[in-house]
Amino acid sequence: MTSCRLCSSQAAYLIEHAKMMLCRDCFIKYYEKKIYNTIMKYGMLRGAGRVTVAVSGGKDSMALLAAMNRLVSEKFPGIKLIAIHINLGIEGYSERCQEIVENVCEDLGIEHVIYDLSSREGYRIPDLKSTPLGRRICGACGTVKRYLMNRLAYEIGSDRLATGHNLDDVVELLFEFYLKGSVEDLVRVRPVSWSDNPKMVTKIKPLIELTERENMYYAMAQGIPLLAASCPLAKGSRMLRRKRLIGLIEREIPGFKHMLYKSHVKRILPRLEKTVPEPSLTECEKCGMPSLSNMCSYCKLVSRLAARSAENST
Amino acid sequence: MTSCRLCSSQAAYLIEHAKMMLCRDCFIKYYEKKIYNTIMKYGMLRGAGRVTVAVSGGKDSMALLAAMNRLVSEKFPGIKLIAIHINLGIEGYSERCQEIVENVCEDLGIEHVIYDLSSREGYRIPDLKSTPLGRRICGACGTVKRYLMNRLAYEIGSDRLATGHNLDDVVELLFEFYLKGSVEDLVRVRPVSWSDNPKMVTKIKPLIELTERENMYYAMAQGIPLLAASCPLAKGSRMLRRKRLIGLIEREIPGFKHMLYKSHVKRILPRLEKTVPEPSLTECEKCGMPSLSNMCSYCKLVSRLAARSAENST
Repeated sequence: MTSCRLCSSQAAYLIEHAKMMLCRDCFIKYYEKKIYNTIMKYGMLRGAGRVTVAVSGGKDSMALLAAMNRLVSEKFPGIKLIAIHINLGIEGYSERCQEIVENVCEDLGIEHVIYDLSSREGYRIPDLKSTPLGRRICGACGTVKRYLMNRLAYEIGSDRLATGHNLDDVVELLFEFYLKGSVEDLVRVRPVSWSDNPKMVTKIKPLIELTERENMYYAMAQGIPLLAASCPLAKGSRMLRRKRLIGLIEREIPGFKHMLYKSHVKRILPRLEKTVPEPSLTECEKCGMPSLSNMCSYCKLVSRLAARSAENST
Repeated sequence: MTSCRLCSSQAAYLIEHAKMMLCRDCFIKYYEKKIYNTIMKYGMLRGAGRVTVAVSGGKDSMALLAAMNRLVSEKFPGIKLIAIHINLGIEGYSERCQEIVENVCEDLGIEHVIYDLSSREGYRIPDLKSTPLGRRICGACGTVKRYLMNRLAYEIGSDRLATGHNLDDVVELLFEFYLKGSVEDLVRVRPVSWSDNPKMVTKIKPLIELTERENMYYAMAQGIPLLAASCPLAKGSRMLRRKRLIGLIEREIPGFKHMLYKSHVKRILPRLEKTVPEPSLTECEKCGMPSLSNMCSYCKLVSRLAARSAENST
């Protein structure tokens, strides 16, 4: 029997990068302390009143929701937490995601909004497959989720939108963007994206310093059901191949992910942001939401989808 | 028989990142064209009169010397080329390095200077092993070579110091420095380090866009003898482990090395340099060469070595 580093109970979880075994109770404390520290370090909840948590039903966002729920009631009692879930209409997958979200929110007594893409927007993510966007469907799905989550959070009057992006997600992005040298993308990889535009809700990533594995452990420790399968549309995606490669590098250089993240946030990001002007936002002529050009990327995507349906029906 | 991509002869060399097989003659033309393009792109020889080539006896610097010798006679007839070699005093290795340098320089009729560390400076690189510097001996050896090469090039009145750093070397450094977030080091990874300090010779890296393998092919194609062994002190060094890891990443992402280098030089470096002030150099109080503090890092290293010898002799 291996003992917990912090008490004498039987250890259950291995924190690889810290070479530390912990029991269930100590792991929960460790995890919640880490989120709390991240929130405080970057002032994520400073002045916040209404926080929307974007939940997919996966381990990361569900762990985030459960931990935020505890933190808010213990440390930030003035904050109101609301979960938002978008049902993406991916057969055999989205039903299960929504079920987990609803069960967990009901168990924990968290107000939640389910936004059904098919009935509200008139299409489902798999419909994108038949368009030129289909070849990079994860990217298009990302555009949909980013746009709708912001709009929904704005519509319900949230002043923060919390997402479940973890260290592995962020390191995968950093690896990609440093490799491509895309400075404009690099400066957007950060724990908080502050906004003073009322239609653009400030985004926070409380899990940014926690690994995928730590989030899975927390979900398990809290009895949150895990999805049996990952998204069927993401199979073999470049994102997954990159994550595998990063796992390989981490084995060669233990601590690689934490190092790359810290170097970015503490040392390189502060320099790069000085050289990139704030993008000047206008309003999308179609939906009125903030946009870099006349039409926002979401409305462009939807109009391409509409054009394709019109083509197919003639 | 596989044919050369450019003529019908039998191919001998595979340029992996370009998926191209070439015969010996076409490879030589390709290689010399690439060096010429690099030199012109970064204006490496603009206004140059006397170019020192730092040669270790290894494939990279010897390929550089042979190619520069041809380029200078064909395209820059006003330039005088001189090779400098430092005999580092590593038993069973340095003798062989010096022999290759002397043979090649005599064959090609290139003026060369052999600087014997032991007789001129009173120590050999292996002597560093017994000092606190010994744990990072490749780093200390780098300090010695950088300092002496600059001083020697300055003393013989060179206006350029060309080194054999190749794409693999530079990508290894970039990987390390991005991971550590050392912005001051990152801005020094560049094809040319211009200097207006007369005692600091402008450094150029004409092989920076050529891989280790391309340099080996060129050395072979030109009949330059290859060292049978690599430096015995570098065995198992972090640098070699990193290069292996980068080879592994290159297999997963073909073109990785070229991409990371280009993104750095074209996109990230121009931003970062704006944020890093030029280091203000003073003169070393011991040797009078340019230094960041009262004593330059070379004189510090030598005085640590002297302190250790004094300790051992008492």
